[in-house]
Amino acid sequence: MSASYQRQVVNLSSKFDLVAEHWQPRVVAELNDYQFKIARLLGDFIWHDHADTDEAFFVIEGTLRIDLPDGSVEIGPGELFVVPRGVKHKPYAEHEVKLMLIEPRGVVNTGEEGGERTAESDVWI
Amino acid sequence: MSASYQRQVVNLSSKFDLVAEHWQPRVVAELNDYQFKIARLLGDFIWHDHADTDEAFFVIEGTLRIDLPDGSVEIGPGELFVVPRGVKHKPYAEHEVKLMLIEPRGVVNTGEEGGERTAESDVWI
Repeated sequence: MSASYQRQVVNLSSKFDLVAEHWQPRVVAELNDYQFKIARLLGDFIWHDHADTDEAFFVIEGTLRIDLPDGSVEIGPGELFVVPRGVKHKPYAEHEVKLMLIEPRGVVNTGEEGGERTAESDVWI
Repeated sequence: MSASYQRQVVNLSSKFDLVAEHWQPRVVAELNDYQFKIARLLGDFIWHDHADTDEAFFVIEGTLRIDLPDGSVEIGPGELFVVPRGVKHKPYAEHEVKLMLIEPRGVVNTGEEGGERTAESDVWI
């Protein structure tokens, strides 16, 4: 980050205003080789996992359900949940959710699963 | 995290209720070898840097000023700022700030500086 150090404060609300699509993560900041991403979610996603990394979900607005092999969790505003590496999960948003994701650079939204729901990774906003 | 996977949703507000002291980061979750910490801040901290890592500040409540070598930034609720590795910084909270920090496991609050303001790292809440 040092090379691009610009004393830039990232206002998440302003960043969400620039995103219309659902399930399209956008990078807003980097921390070493990790990225902070925002995404709007609505409806169902697919079952997938990330073999090599945990994945952190921090909900800004709305309530996100994540289905897991042994049940599900509901994550509301100001709540944080970490899906461990290798654990299958399926996000679901009955109403729109504004989400911040934290994970290593290069992680793809559909993980090991791939397919048509795969979004381009490393797109900044 | 896999070993301790407990489908645990971390509610930051509830976690802050368990912290009374200022400038004492408490770990609330881990993501690979990174940690999410919360801290209450009030007043002045000391100038310090972290030679080996960037450090992410995400403000939950209040307004945090961070003085930097070439000026300062103000970070409000829902705003994120990353201090690059090796950059001297001094946090300041005129009124109490509730902060979430994201950084690698083992980072000490006073960085390379040490001294009496150094808090124990890796304390969970």
